Amino acid sequence: MIKAGIIGSTGYAGQELVRLLLQHPQAEIVWYGSRSYVDHKYEEVYRNMFRIVDSRCLDDNMEELSKQADVIFTATPQGLCASLVNEEILNRAKIIDLSADFRIKDVKVYEKWYGILHKSPEYIPEAVYGLCEINREDIRKARLIANPGCYTTCSILTLYPLVKEKLVNPHSIIIDAKSGTSGAGRGAKLPNLFCEVNESIKAYGVTSHRHTPEIEEQLGYAAGEEIRINFTPHLVPMNRGILATAYADLKPGVTEEQVRAAYEAYYGQEYFIRLLGSGVYPETRWVEGSNFVDIGFQLDERTHRIVALGAIDNLVKGAAGQAVQNMNLLFGLPENTGLQLVPVFP
Amino acid sequence: MIKAGIIGSTGYAGQELVRLLLQHPQAEIVWYGSRSYVDHKYEEVYRNMFRIVDSRCLDDNMEELSKQADVIFTATPQGLCASLVNEEILNRAKIIDLSADFRIKDVKVYEKWYGILHKSPEYIPEAVYGLCEINREDIRKARLIANPGCYTTCSILTLYPLVKEKLVNPHSIIIDAKSGTSGAGRGAKLPNLFCEVNESIKAYGVTSHRHTPEIEEQLGYAAGEEIRINFTPHLVPMNRGILATAYADLKPGVTEEQVRAAYEAYYGQEYFIRLLGSGVYPETRWVEGSNFVDIGFQLDERTHRIVALGAIDNLVKGAAGQAVQNMNLLFGLPENTGLQLVPVFP
Amino acid sequence: MIKAGIIGSTGYAGQELVRLLLQHPQAEIVWYGSRSYVDHKYEEVYRNMFRIVDSRCLDDNMEELSKQADVIFTATPQGLCASLVNEEILNRAKIIDLSADFRIKDVKVYEKWYGILHKSPEYIPEAVYGLCEINREDIRKARLIANPGCYTTCSILTLYPLVKEKLVNPHSIIIDAKSGTSGAGRGAKLPNLFCEVNESIKAYGVTSHRHTPEIEEQLGYAAGEEIRINFTPHLVPMNRGILATAYADLKPGVTEEQVRAAYEAYYGQEYFIRLLGSGVYPETRWVEGSNFVDIGFQLDERTHRIVALGAIDNLVKGAAGQAVQNMNLLFGLPENTGLQLVPVFP
Amino acid sequence: MIKAGIIGSTGYAGQELVRLLLQHPQAEIVWYGSRSYVDHKYEEVYRNMFRIVDSRCLDDNMEELSKQADVIFTATPQGLCASLVNEEILNRAKIIDLSADFRIKDVKVYEKWYGILHKSPEYIPEAVYGLCEINREDIRKARLIANPGCYTTCSILTLYPLVKEKLVNPHSIIIDAKSGTSGAGRGAKLPNLFCEVNESIKAYGVTSHRHTPEIEEQLGYAAGEEIRINFTPHLVPMNRGILATAYADLKPGVTEEQVRAAYEAYYGQEYFIRLLGSGVYPETRWVEGSNFVDIGFQLDERTHRIVALGAIDNLVKGAAGQAVQNMNLLFGLPENTGLQLVPVFP
Repeated sequence: MIKAGIIGSTGYAGQELVRLLLQHPQAEIVWYGSRSYVDHKYEEVYRNMFRIVDSRCLDDNMEELSKQADVIFTATPQGLCASLVNEEILNRAKIIDLSADFRIKDVKVYEKWYGILHKSPEYIPEAVYGLCEINREDIRKARLIANPGCYTTCSILTLYPLVKEKLVNPHSIIIDAKSGTSGAGRGAKLPNLFCEVNESIKAYGVTSHRHTPEIEEQLGYAAGEEIRINFTPHLVPMNRGILATAYADLKPGVTEEQVRAAYEAYYGQEYFIRLLGSGVYPETRWVEGSNFVDIGFQLDERTHRIVALGAIDNLVKGAAGQAVQNMNLLFGLPENTGLQLVPVFP
Repeated sequence: MIKAGIIGSTGYAGQELVRLLLQHPQAEIVWYGSRSYVDHKYEEVYRNMFRIVDSRCLDDNMEELSKQADVIFTATPQGLCASLVNEEILNRAKIIDLSADFRIKDVKVYEKWYGILHKSPEYIPEAVYGLCEINREDIRKARLIANPGCYTTCSILTLYPLVKEKLVNPHSIIIDAKSGTSGAGRGAKLPNLFCEVNESIKAYGVTSHRHTPEIEEQLGYAAGEEIRINFTPHLVPMNRGILATAYADLKPGVTEEQVRAAYEAYYGQEYFIRLLGSGVYPETRWVEGSNFVDIGFQLDERTHRIVALGAIDNLVKGAAGQAVQNMNLLFGLPENTGLQLVPVFP
Repeated sequence: MIKAGIIGSTGYAGQELVRLLLQHPQAEIVWYGSRSYVDHKYEEVYRNMFRIVDSRCLDDNMEELSKQADVIFTATPQGLCASLVNEEILNRAKIIDLSADFRIKDVKVYEKWYGILHKSPEYIPEAVYGLCEINREDIRKARLIANPGCYTTCSILTLYPLVKEKLVNPHSIIIDAKSGTSGAGRGAKLPNLFCEVNESIKAYGVTSHRHTPEIEEQLGYAAGEEIRINFTPHLVPMNRGILATAYADLKPGVTEEQVRAAYEAYYGQEYFIRLLGSGVYPETRWVEGSNFVDIGFQLDERTHRIVALGAIDNLVKGAAGQAVQNMNLLFGLPENTGLQLVPVFP
Repeated sequence: MIKAGIIGSTGYAGQELVRLLLQHPQAEIVWYGSRSYVDHKYEEVYRNMFRIVDSRCLDDNMEELSKQADVIFTATPQGLCASLVNEEILNRAKIIDLSADFRIKDVKVYEKWYGILHKSPEYIPEAVYGLCEINREDIRKARLIANPGCYTTCSILTLYPLVKEKLVNPHSIIIDAKSGTSGAGRGAKLPNLFCEVNESIKAYGVTSHRHTPEIEEQLGYAAGEEIRINFTPHLVPMNRGILATAYADLKPGVTEEQVRAAYEAYYGQEYFIRLLGSGVYPETRWVEGSNFVDIGFQLDERTHRIVALGAIDNLVKGAAGQAVQNMNLLFGLPENTGLQLVPVFP
């Protein structure tokens, strides 16, 4: 059994990680970290866990935790993982960081978009960007995984084959994304109150959302050049789910067949990526509770653009599910161990 | 492997049954019945099943189905199961009927409340009311299980120890229940449109809902006498969940300790019933996606009444989950096989 | 023009009061009080008011306000109005208090249920309980109006004719109420976050909600004796609306005709009370945005009980609308001035 | 008083028209047309109208209606208005058509996108596209108004000054729009059931939605050339509201000041258009129930694009409110008569 510790287990992503690990046949949770709820029973913080989890919350002593665990998940605010990690810890346990601390290779870009000083830039080079379908081989050998953001996972996977195969102009990319409210976290903030979110939709972080450079970096690798994109997130009155609607100019002469072939080439064998048929577009309800990414697309002859759409559950493939997928890779398990979840509908 | 067939697999309860059986380690689905979608691919009716279910929908030929399956689930409108069942079928396969056809022992009561003629009253006597926590032993030996209604499961389990132990006056019982909209089914009806349900709450079937006699019969057995209750269902703008708020006059001198002891005596060993602590009341979000029943209560010294509350997921413990629980009993499996589902939140 | 000041104008009830007074032909707002947002532009706190309200928020100096206003609305937490009111203020301006400070005649009951010391019990006797349909004449002559609670307005109006005409046993009354989330206020609290409220229903304050003694007192006046009732509020995932489902034992021999006649006698001429036809029950969607109370009922021959149901918009008839109705009475205007609002659907 | 008749008064747009006209000081409704509900009491179709509307539904005899009414609103499926209109009717009454029949000047384009034959193309030339802020003067003189679509109203108004002033490349325009579910109409269709829409977001009509050519035509007039755009609508689990997020390449050197000046020049005096301040973006909740259009924008220096966002209530400014605004213009009333509605929040 893999012994897993979670720092930040009482946020929504942390709790989803608990749910997934509890149902994982080869992992057990040994540490429910939560700075805000130290000594509280976990089942009192999340009453769905009543009589399922019998533990109390612990602090974020990563030093001690690394002695007890084989893998540490940090589902914490930006900056915390970078401030705690060190050589000893990394030698004892694998770290899967769900924050952004090790996602961006250029520390200056990180510090500019996140507005904080990076406390351990020396570990950035070795950190592997944990988008399993793209970086599978590197992940297997890593000590430190930078688990991708929710919007980024959905956006990159939706566009990757198009960019990689140079079917679109990467500088023309515009991503209009929509997220359920669990993405905003469990903080008690006025804008996240039921009556403020319900019956409304809004954009936020227009031209300035922090997932932008992460998408640009990863799609830039695929394109083989630096790119700048537009990314606009929106808040939707639902609990879970991300839908990314991406637009790009097609290279001259590109056909639907070529596009489909590219998606098939990259994703045809992927368990978690479901390429939808012609004329079918993803809807977040069909992936809820699962680690699937549903992808569909439509070429527009009139404008010579492609509209590519992807849907994920932001807490699963966008956070906890992908983290478990990374854990499976790190420990040599079949990648979908504990993740063969049938989406819950309605 | 238990071979399972589902008649009515494209309703919400039928689809939930598919989800649960797909994740059941000892069952496989051999027949996706759906009168409305014969020959359609199941994954096109429910796109969450894309690349998970590869079958096409079949008709409701129970004769043929009984030759292929060990157990038949009928998740169909009232009257269908009663019109199809016969001795040969029952000798070949177990039947778990999710409709009301075999729930009520007095066929006249059934015919009055449901307004239809019962086509096979000869099987009513042998049918076992499949409320597992109450009728476990009888279920193991049955050929025909009448799977309880969603409101009834929640209402009866919430009140059973109080009535059985004569802690309350059973004639004083009032149940005010609230259900998510999946309980209304997948029929394309104006009252179930998003804009008609959203942002509103209403009562329906006031004094006349069909689950009333079912609750009365079962609680009557517990009371040892015929009883009449008030039951009022309400429609809530959410997908899943039932909350039953039940009121009853306490017998003189009954204390909180006695009440808690009664609940503990009946439910203390039950895997699926979670008795909440003092001052904690059930919320549907904490059971969503699981087979749990959460129960809490509060004595009111001022009025000498008790308020007992229960919450279930209407599609799981209120339908498909309980049906699988019954299947497990019928086939000698541990009762929670395939049902150790962690509730999904948020 | 009536000059109106609002203390607590940035809560949900306060903001609804702003909306209604802005559309009132004979009132103008001269003071947008808000302790939390002093000096902020009101339109930045509520962006629906952008370019409609040009004022900045002021503090809660009731002394000064009473010199500028003809009527003061206090939409503030319990205790504040009682701590500010004095003889000079009352001589200068009418006060309509939306808090509970002056609703309960027995100060000991108030202090017990609310857990705070009443700062000005000397004004309790003269305060008039502002349930317009019941206390219309007293309201016209008052200086200080105790505007009823949201649950209480709905509950009392639903039951009043039954109790007053002794058609039911008042000691048997059970009220099971359901409220939209705006009733929980605009405070940034975890239980009111979107993801915590959405897709769930729960009871709260079981046997202990503060509106209980208020309902008991008012229905007690109607009954001519002290009564104790059960009242259970529930939180529903919707913005607005209260539905009260009330149960009571019918006095022997009471018929549907008698019940309907009683409702007609008391409410037949009321503009804001809409008595629904036989077999029709209220739904909150049909009153949203309006000051209407929709009432329906059903006798149950089997149990000799009545189920009476009422629906209001908690922010209108349950708070701001009723406050304006009281203002109209205080200033000799037709009671529905500025309140002839067509419910907004969907 | 203007005598108004409505054909199609029992759809969501028709009902909203009823709500607005009931509160209009200079209009009265003389004809509640509804092919589906002929002879039904209107208040039984929409119970919010109980005791407010006392009429029964009539058929769609436009001939007869034109003798009784000064203005006829057709809130009907595509093709109906075109099949009924004739010279006599137009000479007797003004027609405001909420369908698409007269919105597109090129009948071939209409017939291609809508897939039906136009029954009275001879009236297309004289029909005025009823986007009041753009075509105000022509509307005053018209007999036949083509009331714009909901997505189109929001999209065109959001982009008009940018295109008209040549601040952006019109061929680069991409509009990603999100709509509440009332836009899907009141038909009893499976995809519009509560459980199918709730907790999900999806795109639909990708590259093929019928509002596309309407936007292209109107923005083409502004651009002075034919343009092709991408328009992608999405369904959001909320009742009302449209948010349009529009992207376009800025012409070289265009500054935020120039953009703001352009919006101010066109909209500075408009009652219904609220240009938001820098860094503030529209949210549908702030316009709900009102005829406002909230517009905000953000320049992106990194990509040299602009993101312009607009929000409306799809049933008001996107349908019934704009229809009343057109009526006001047709009859020489101040444009906001009966439309000074404060948005309802929450």
